[in-house]
Amino acid sequence: MSAPVTGQGGEEPGETPAPSAPAARRDPSRRALLGAGGAGLAALAAGFAGGFGAARAQGAPPATDDGHVVPFRGARQAGIVTPAQDRLHFAAFDLTTSSRDDVVDLLRRWSLAAERMTRGLPAGELGPVGGAYDAPPDDTGEAQELRPGNLTITFGFGPSLFGGGDIGPDRFGLAARRPNALADLPHFPGDTLEAARCGGDLMVQACSDDPQIAVHAVRNLARLAFGTAQVRWSQLGYGRTSRTSSAQATPRNLFGFKDGTANLLAEDTAALDEHVWVAPGDDPAASWLAGGSYLVARRIRMTIETWDRSSLREQESVVGRTKGTGAPLSGGQEATEPDFTRTGNDGRPLIDPDSHVALAHPTANGGVRMLRRGYNYTDGSDGLGRLDAGLFFLAFVRDPVRQFVPMQNALAKNDLMSEYLRHTGSGVWAVPPGLADGADYVGQALFES
Amino acid sequence: MSAPVTGQGGEEPGETPAPSAPAARRDPSRRALLGAGGAGLAALAAGFAGGFGAARAQGAPPATDDGHVVPFRGARQAGIVTPAQDRLHFAAFDLTTSSRDDVVDLLRRWSLAAERMTRGLPAGELGPVGGAYDAPPDDTGEAQELRPGNLTITFGFGPSLFGGGDIGPDRFGLAARRPNALADLPHFPGDTLEAARCGGDLMVQACSDDPQIAVHAVRNLARLAFGTAQVRWSQLGYGRTSRTSSAQATPRNLFGFKDGTANLLAEDTAALDEHVWVAPGDDPAASWLAGGSYLVARRIRMTIETWDRSSLREQESVVGRTKGTGAPLSGGQEATEPDFTRTGNDGRPLIDPDSHVALAHPTANGGVRMLRRGYNYTDGSDGLGRLDAGLFFLAFVRDPVRQFVPMQNALAKNDLMSEYLRHTGSGVWAVPPGLADGADYVGQALFES
Ligand code: HEM
Ligand code: HEM
Repeated sequence: MSAPVTGQGGEEPGETPAPSAPAARRDPSRRALLGAGGAGLAALAAGFAGGFGAARAQGAPPATDDGHVVPFRGARQAGIVTPAQDRLHFAAFDLTTSSRDDVVDLLRRWSLAAERMTRGLPAGELGPVGGAYDAPPDDTGEAQELRPGNLTITFGFGPSLFGGGDIGPDRFGLAARRPNALADLPHFPGDTLEAARCGGDLMVQACSDDPQIAVHAVRNLARLAFGTAQVRWSQLGYGRTSRTSSAQATPRNLFGFKDGTANLLAEDTAALDEHVWVAPGDDPAASWLAGGSYLVARRIRMTIETWDRSSLREQESVVGRTKGTGAPLSGGQEATEPDFTRTGNDGRPLIDPDSHVALAHPTANGGVRMLRRGYNYTDGSDGLGRLDAGLFFLAFVRDPVRQFVPMQNALAKNDLMSEYLRHTGSGVWAVPPGLADGADYVGQALFES
Repeated sequence: MSAPVTGQGGEEPGETPAPSAPAARRDPSRRALLGAGGAGLAALAAGFAGGFGAARAQGAPPATDDGHVVPFRGARQAGIVTPAQDRLHFAAFDLTTSSRDDVVDLLRRWSLAAERMTRGLPAGELGPVGGAYDAPPDDTGEAQELRPGNLTITFGFGPSLFGGGDIGPDRFGLAARRPNALADLPHFPGDTLEAARCGGDLMVQACSDDPQIAVHAVRNLARLAFGTAQVRWSQLGYGRTSRTSSAQATPRNLFGFKDGTANLLAEDTAALDEHVWVAPGDDPAASWLAGGSYLVARRIRMTIETWDRSSLREQESVVGRTKGTGAPLSGGQEATEPDFTRTGNDGRPLIDPDSHVALAHPTANGGVRMLRRGYNYTDGSDGLGRLDAGLFFLAFVRDPVRQFVPMQNALAKNDLMSEYLRHTGSGVWAVPPGLADGADYVGQALFES
């Protein structure tokens, strides 16, 4: 245990005359009321004796070691160029309200809670767990001693939030402000998408060094959304499969290959401006998105049992790089540029033109790049003796239609790797710019300007 | 990257005359053969130039910092009293063979691979990735720079491995040696088990500080089992919900409460002898199990959305302890013994007799204790806006029939907590003693003595 914990009474029970239990209580049940009869009153008494002030002082936030806090506010949202943390909890939400005010109110409360949690505080406004004994706690409590853990929370808006045209009803009067590039992704060759893992009005990407912190963040946002929005689908990821900073080592994905070698990096700001950040002139109808980005998510199952029985030769041919060091098959080290013209003694290219890298590399694909920030996942097994494991692919781009769509089309058609992949989930969201000092909530410019 | 990585050629390609590709190749496919045409041969050439010896030297195992190695051999299997690591990958396997020799051979290969992986080596006997270019790698590679990470691998044998009586066919001539206490758990009140998450001939519990290491271990054991056994079901866990050593802090479960406060601890060897380890006289028919234990697994979904809307009073009444410090509601600190006789001013017990702790505490339940070693899980969502999250309950006991069954019956009937729980998976396995120096495989005494 590394930080002070809130006490909420019960430690010195029974001696103070107990006041009667407040009448207002949510979800009362016979058993619960019986259960609360003894201990509850005693603890409530202790709560009064100590006073909520005392409880609050006891519940002071954990020491927020700056090394573990990623600032929530800034020109960009955190969780994009932030050095990729090792754990993810991702959730897509659907709005259950038809009121625009409710949506704004939710974004306000989410932004407040997100800023608090990333700073290492409980999610609630009212102070730490234990503020009120007869109300639900302001925070679910399971990350009490763990936060802040480099938590980032990144919000996005899906096409269905806006509606209009083919996309659906314009529930919130936002259709005219929908960015041109924000539409459901087209069907790609070989797609085997499950509707229950696609889309969503709102998107929350929570990344942290500790999965319990990331899950805690999504859960508390879901709790705050009760009555306004609910989780449509969610995904846990456990090992980053990219690097987003030159200071990070390249990790490995579940094919056992280094992943993130040729990724866009935080330090290359010129490349980020070209490939990741939406520029002011990009889309006049969606000026609110300037300085933001788009997130594309694809849940890609990898048939690892088949992969594991294929030869090392086959595996390296498919990727276009060596398994050991990650060097391109055209020679050199991990950082060496692939040379797609170089041939072997048989006159054939050393890097197969249908390898993953040959199709995805900018010199071969017309210049497209993206900031990849995905995670491994393992979700049990499929009843046929195989693990349901793969890559939860996440990429930030300036324009999904010009970047992701053509690349995924090329990969789906020709990539040797496709034989070992099945795309089962998908989504695209506009990711507004960061929350400036003084601003109230993420996406404010969409609703108010 | 913290350790040397194997290279397997490709870095200096094309210059050496390429030998023709070996004929023997598993799973050849047109595309794969085409793909291998250039790069593959070149890399193979480099492989010859460097020699496999060189590859092996390059691929020396990562430095096995003793702080990160839990010895695989010993009187007990590791992963029971080992201080609970923070991540779990659990898998139940079914045998697909009908040959007893195959089973023994699998256990031999599993034991060898498990010992290697826990020491920080690749799973394969033949050396690191890259030993042979036209064969599948000996190890899937994704934990190359991460191992050993305090990996423990614990094996168990389910009732169906033995068969006999009501349990099923005696496929391997083991029915006479089935321990009396090893039978499928009875149906408990309120059980909502899914068949696809229950049982299994063999059980593998892999725990580590890093989920990628635990998943890697299970995956490589599944790979080695190909043709003999296959995964029946599996479960990823991400935050330990217990402590098994007095040196460990008490973590929190997804109800936000401290979990593991009153657990059995490694240091209390007398209590372990009484409640966890099978003694030589316990079961004459199953002397092979002496020094071992039993593992009970229950996948318990927690309806956290309902919990999160219940008052702090209700939550504490249900558990019988405070949420902040984990002290019993009868007063004191976390370590204070609960006093079930102590009453409040209204004359009722401060700890509700139907609270979880009142029903599970040894003074209230007739002396039963167990070594709990469970994990949180979060497996996406259920299509109704709720997370599929909960506790993957794991407990080691000396006798499941006398310890787990009566306690779970009492909890299922009366525990206030049951309102917030749904049991969805279940299994029980005999856990043989550890592998002695010189012994060949876990469970050898079952098959050979
Ligand atoms: C499970 C599926 C996938 C796996 C296992 C995978 C794996 C890899 C690997 C091992 C590399 C080489 C190392 C690196 O530069 O990071 C790579 C590169 C890359 N991948 Fe993927 N990938 C997958 C899906 C995708 C998808 C769906 C896209 C986009 C549509 C994509 C786009 C890229 C790009 C742009 C590169 C960098 C290419 C370069 O500039 O050299 N990948 N991927
Ligand atoms: C999701 C389900 C469960 C949750 C959330 C849960 C939670 C807790 C908590 C918070 C405690 C108090 C702290 C501690 O001593 O560790 C506890 C104690 C305990 N639980 Fe559970 N538990 C669950 C299921 C079970 C089951 C299925 C059993 C066994 C059938 C069990 C057996 C015990 C025992 C033996 C104790 C220690 C009681 C004592 O000696 O005071 N629990 N549990």
